[in-house]
Amino acid sequence: MNKVNLKQKLGLFDQTWTPKIIGALNGQEVKLAKLDGEFLWHTHEEEDEMFLLLEGSLTMRFRDRDDVTLEVGEMLIVPRGVEHLPIAPHGASVLLIEPAGTGHTGSTVSDRTVVNQEWI
Amino acid sequence: MNKVNLKQKLGLFDQTWTPKIIGALNGQEVKLAKLDGEFLWHTHEEEDEMFLLLEGSLTMRFRDRDDVTLEVGEMLIVPRGVEHLPIAPHGASVLLIEPAGTGHTGSTVSDRTVVNQEWI
Repeated sequence: MNKVNLKQKLGLFDQTWTPKIIGALNGQEVKLAKLDGEFLWHTHEEEDEMFLLLEGSLTMRFRDRDDVTLEVGEMLIVPRGVEHLPIAPHGASVLLIEPAGTGHTGSTVSDRTVVNQEWI
Repeated sequence: MNKVNLKQKLGLFDQTWTPKIIGALNGQEVKLAKLDGEFLWHTHEEEDEMFLLLEGSLTMRFRDRDDVTLEVGEMLIVPRGVEHLPIAPHGASVLLIEPAGTGHTGSTVSDRTVVNQEWI
Protein backbone atom coordinates (compact mmCIF):
# COMPACT_ATOMS: atom_id res chain seq x y z
CA MET A 1 0.00 0.00 0.00
CA ASN A 2 1.98 2.96 -1.33
CA LYS A 3 0.86 6.49 -1.94
CA VAL A 4 0.83 7.74 -5.52
CA ASN A 5 1.88 11.22 -6.54
CA LEU A 6 -0.08 12.16 -9.64
CA LYS A 7 2.45 14.66 -11.01
CA GLN A 8 5.32 12.22 -10.53
CA LYS A 9 3.40 9.51 -12.40
CA LEU A 10 2.46 11.93 -15.20
CA GLY A 11 6.18 12.63 -15.62
CA LEU A 12 6.82 8.97 -16.45
CA PHE A 13 5.21 8.95 -19.89
CA ASP A 14 4.52 11.16 -22.89
CA GLN A 15 2.28 8.98 -25.05
CA THR A 16 -1.16 10.40 -25.64
CA TRP A 17 -4.40 8.38 -25.69
CA THR A 18 -2.63 5.59 -23.81
CA PRO A 19 -4.11 5.21 -20.33
CA LYS A 20 -1.72 4.04 -17.61
CA ILE A 21 -3.02 2.26 -14.53
CA ILE A 22 -2.03 3.68 -11.14
CA GLY A 23 -4.44 1.98 -8.76
CA ALA A 24 -7.25 -0.53 -8.33
CA LEU A 25 -10.15 -0.73 -5.92
CA ASN A 26 -13.45 -2.58 -5.76
CA GLY A 27 -13.14 -3.85 -9.32
CA GLN A 28 -12.32 -0.40 -10.68
CA GLU A 29 -9.04 0.90 -12.04
CA VAL A 30 -7.62 4.36 -11.55
CA LYS A 31 -5.71 5.58 -14.60
CA LEU A 32 -3.81 8.56 -15.89
CA ALA A 33 -4.01 9.59 -19.52
CA LYS A 34 -2.58 12.37 -21.63
CA LEU A 35 -4.79 13.63 -24.41
CA ASP A 36 -4.00 15.81 -27.38
CA GLY A 37 -6.34 16.71 -30.21
CA GLU A 38 -9.44 14.72 -31.07
CA PHE A 39 -9.95 11.06 -30.12
CA LEU A 40 -12.68 8.94 -31.70
CA TRP A 41 -16.36 8.49 -31.10
CA HIS A 42 -16.98 5.53 -28.83
CA THR A 43 -19.33 4.04 -26.27
CA HIS A 44 -18.73 1.91 -23.20
CA GLU A 45 -21.76 -0.33 -23.19
CA GLU A 46 -21.48 -1.51 -19.60
CA GLU A 47 -19.10 0.91 -17.92
CA ASP A 48 -19.56 4.36 -16.42
CA GLU A 49 -16.39 6.42 -16.82
CA MET A 50 -15.16 9.23 -14.61
CA PHE A 51 -12.85 11.99 -15.85
CA LEU A 52 -11.08 14.38 -13.46
CA LEU A 53 -9.09 17.03 -15.28
CA LEU A 54 -5.57 17.53 -13.89
CA GLU A 55 -3.96 19.67 -16.60
CA GLY A 56 -5.12 21.54 -19.69
CA SER A 57 -8.67 21.66 -20.94
CA LEU A 58 -10.98 18.91 -22.21
CA THR A 59 -14.19 19.08 -24.19
CA MET A 60 -16.50 16.09 -24.25
CA ARG A 61 -18.78 16.01 -27.29
CA PHE A 62 -22.02 14.03 -27.37
CA ARG A 63 -24.42 13.02 -30.11
CA ASP A 64 -27.54 14.17 -28.34
CA ARG A 65 -26.61 17.02 -26.00
CA ASP A 66 -24.34 20.03 -25.64
CA ASP A 67 -20.59 19.80 -25.28
CA VAL A 68 -19.18 19.80 -21.74
CA THR A 69 -15.83 21.55 -21.32
CA LEU A 70 -13.78 20.70 -18.24
CA GLU A 71 -11.20 22.96 -16.65
CA VAL A 72 -8.60 21.80 -14.13
CA GLY A 73 -10.27 20.56 -10.94
CA GLU A 74 -13.52 19.62 -12.66
CA MET A 75 -14.89 16.11 -13.13
CA LEU A 76 -17.46 14.46 -15.35
CA ILE A 77 -19.01 11.01 -15.19
CA VAL A 78 -20.08 9.69 -18.59
CA PRO A 79 -22.72 7.02 -18.01
CA ARG A 80 -22.55 3.68 -19.78
CA GLY A 81 -24.15 3.65 -23.20
CA VAL A 82 -23.56 7.34 -23.92
CA GLU A 83 -21.49 7.87 -27.05
CA HIS A 84 -18.78 10.47 -26.53
CA LEU A 85 -15.82 12.09 -28.24
CA PRO A 86 -13.01 13.57 -26.09
CA ILE A 87 -11.32 16.62 -27.60
CA ALA A 88 -8.28 18.39 -26.12
CA PRO A 89 -7.15 20.93 -28.72
CA HIS A 90 -4.26 22.16 -26.57
CA GLY A 91 -3.57 18.97 -24.61
CA ALA A 92 -4.83 17.65 -21.29
CA SER A 93 -4.05 15.21 -18.52
CA VAL A 94 -6.85 13.31 -16.83
CA LEU A 95 -7.46 10.93 -13.98
CA LEU A 96 -9.84 8.20 -15.11
CA ILE A 97 -11.85 5.76 -13.05
CA GLU A 98 -13.67 2.89 -14.70
CA PRO A 99 -14.13 -0.86 -14.25
CA ALA A 100 -10.98 -2.97 -14.52
CA GLY A 101 -10.42 -4.06 -18.08
CA THR A 102 -12.30 -1.19 -19.69
CA GLY A 103 -10.89 -0.37 -23.11
CA HIS A 104 -10.44 3.31 -23.84
CA THR A 105 -12.18 3.06 -27.21
CA GLY A 106 -15.14 1.17 -25.78
CA SER A 107 -16.92 -1.00 -28.33
CA THR A 108 -15.03 0.68 -31.17
CA VAL A 109 -11.76 -1.01 -32.12
CA SER A 110 -9.32 0.94 -34.27
CA ASP A 111 -5.62 1.20 -34.84
CA ARG A 112 -5.64 3.66 -31.93
CA THR A 113 -6.95 1.06 -29.49
CA VAL A 114 -4.46 0.10 -26.76
CA VAL A 115 -5.29 -3.53 -26.04
CA ASN A 116 -3.22 -4.12 -22.93
CA GLN A 117 -3.11 -1.09 -20.70
CA GLU A 118 -0.10 -1.12 -18.41
CA TRP A 119 0.62 -0.12 -14.83
CA ILE A 120 3.08 2.61 -14.10
CA MET B 1 -24.80 14.52 -16.77
CA ASN B 2 -23.27 17.68 -15.34
CA LYS B 3 -19.68 18.48 -14.64
CA VAL B 4 -18.64 18.99 -11.03
CA ASN B 5 -16.18 21.63 -9.90
CA LEU B 6 -14.42 20.33 -6.81
CA LYS B 7 -13.56 23.73 -5.33
CA GLN B 8 -17.11 24.98 -5.83
CA LYS B 9 -18.50 21.91 -4.06
CA LEU B 10 -15.99 22.24 -1.21
CA GLY B 11 -17.29 25.78 -0.71
CA LEU B 12 -20.78 24.48 0.04
CA PHE B 13 -20.04 22.99 3.44
CA ASP B 14 -17.84 23.44 6.49
CA GLN B 15 -18.60 20.34 8.55
CA THR B 16 -15.65 18.07 9.13
CA TRP B 17 -15.76 14.26 9.08
CA THR B 18 -19.03 14.42 7.15
CA PRO B 19 -18.54 13.06 3.63
CA LYS B 20 -20.72 14.59 0.91
CA ILE B 21 -21.54 12.67 -2.24
CA ILE B 22 -20.76 14.34 -5.58
CA GLY B 23 -20.98 11.46 -8.04
CA ALA B 24 -21.72 7.78 -8.59
CA LEU B 25 -20.40 5.23 -11.05
CA ASN B 26 -20.32 1.45 -11.30
CA GLY B 27 -21.63 0.99 -7.78
CA GLN B 28 -19.08 3.40 -6.32
CA GLU B 29 -19.65 6.84 -4.86
CA VAL B 30 -17.37 9.84 -5.24
CA LYS B 31 -17.33 12.01 -2.13
CA LEU B 32 -15.73 15.12 -0.73
CA ALA B 33 -14.81 15.37 2.93
CA LYS B 34 -13.16 17.94 5.15
CA LEU B 35 -10.99 16.59 7.92
CA ASP B 36 -9.56 18.29 10.97
CA GLY B 37 -7.66 16.65 13.79
CA GLU B 38 -7.83 12.96 14.54
CA PHE B 39 -10.69 10.70 13.48
CA LEU B 40 -11.17 7.22 14.95
CA TRP B 41 -9.68 3.83 14.27
CA HIS B 42 -11.89 1.88 11.90
CA THR B 43 -11.95 -0.84 9.27
CA HIS B 44 -14.05 -1.31 6.16
CA GLU B 45 -14.46 -5.06 6.04
CA GLU B 46 -15.57 -5.32 2.42
CA GLU B 47 -14.65 -1.99 0.85
CA ASP B 48 -11.42 -0.61 -0.55
CA GLU B 49 -11.25 3.16 -0.06
CA MET B 50 -9.39 5.70 -2.17
CA PHE B 51 -8.21 9.06 -0.81
CA LEU B 52 -7.00 11.85 -3.10
CA LEU B 53 -5.75 14.86 -1.17
CA LEU B 54 -7.08 18.18 -2.49
CA GLU B 55 -6.09 20.59 0.30
CA GLY B 56 -3.94 20.45 3.43
CA SER B 57 -2.07 17.40 4.63
CA LEU B 58 -3.29 13.98 5.78
CA THR B 59 -1.55 11.23 7.69
CA MET B 60 -2.97 7.72 7.63
CA ARG B 61 -1.93 5.64 10.62
CA PHE B 62 -2.00 1.84 10.60
CA ARG B 63 -1.68 -0.83 13.28
CA ASP B 64 0.90 -2.88 11.49
CA ARG B 65 2.94 -0.57 9.25
CA ASP B 66 4.39 2.92 9.01
CA ASP B 67 2.29 6.05 8.70
CA VAL B 68 1.64 7.37 5.19
CA THR B 69 1.45 11.16 4.88
CA LEU B 70 -0.27 12.58 1.81
CA GLU B 71 0.42 15.99 0.32
CA VAL B 72 -1.86 17.72 -2.18
CA GLY B 73 -2.04 15.74 -5.43
CA GLU B 74 -1.24 12.41 -3.79
CA MET B 75 -3.57 9.44 -3.44
CA LEU B 76 -3.74 6.33 -1.31
CA ILE B 77 -5.92 3.26 -1.59
CA VAL B 78 -6.59 1.58 1.75
CA PRO B 79 -7.54 -2.04 1.05
CA ARG B 80 -10.54 -3.62 2.73
CA GLY B 81 -9.81 -5.11 6.11
CA VAL B 82 -6.95 -2.75 6.95
CA GLU B 83 -7.58 -0.78 10.12
CA HIS B 84 -6.69 2.87 9.72
CA LEU B 85 -6.81 6.20 11.52
CA PRO B 86 -6.93 9.42 9.47
CA ILE B 87 -5.17 12.38 11.10
CA ALA B 88 -5.17 15.94 9.72
CA PRO B 89 -3.58 18.13 12.40
CA HIS B 90 -3.95 21.30 10.32
CA GLY B 91 -7.02 20.34 8.29
CA ALA B 92 -7.46 18.68 4.93
CA SER B 93 -9.93 18.20 2.09
CA VAL B 94 -10.12 14.86 0.31
CA LEU B 95 -11.81 13.23 -2.62
CA LEU B 96 -12.99 9.76 -1.60
CA ILE B 97 -14.04 6.86 -3.77
CA GLU B 98 -15.63 3.79 -2.21
CA PRO B 99 -18.63 1.51 -2.79
CA ALA B 100 -22.04 3.16 -2.53
CA GLY B 101 -23.32 3.00 1.01
CA THR B 102 -19.92 2.77 2.67
CA GLY B 103 -19.97 4.31 6.12
CA HIS B 104 -17.02 6.52 6.96
CA THR B 105 -16.44 4.82 10.29
CA GLY B 106 -16.55 1.33 8.77
CA SER B 107 -17.57 -1.36 11.21
CA THR B 108 -17.11 1.04 14.12
CA VAL B 109 -20.22 2.98 15.08
CA SER B 110 -19.82 5.99 17.32
CA ASP B 111 -21.48 9.31 17.95
CA ARG B 112 -19.31 10.62 15.12
CA THR B 113 -20.84 8.25 12.60
CA VAL B 114 -22.88 9.98 9.88
CA VAL B 115 -25.58 7.46 9.04
CA ASN B 116 -27.10 9.04 5.95
CA GLN B 117 -24.50 10.72 3.81
CA GLU B 118 -26.01 13.37 1.57
CA TRP B 119 -25.46 14.60 -1.96
CA ILE B 120 -24.33 18.13 -2.59
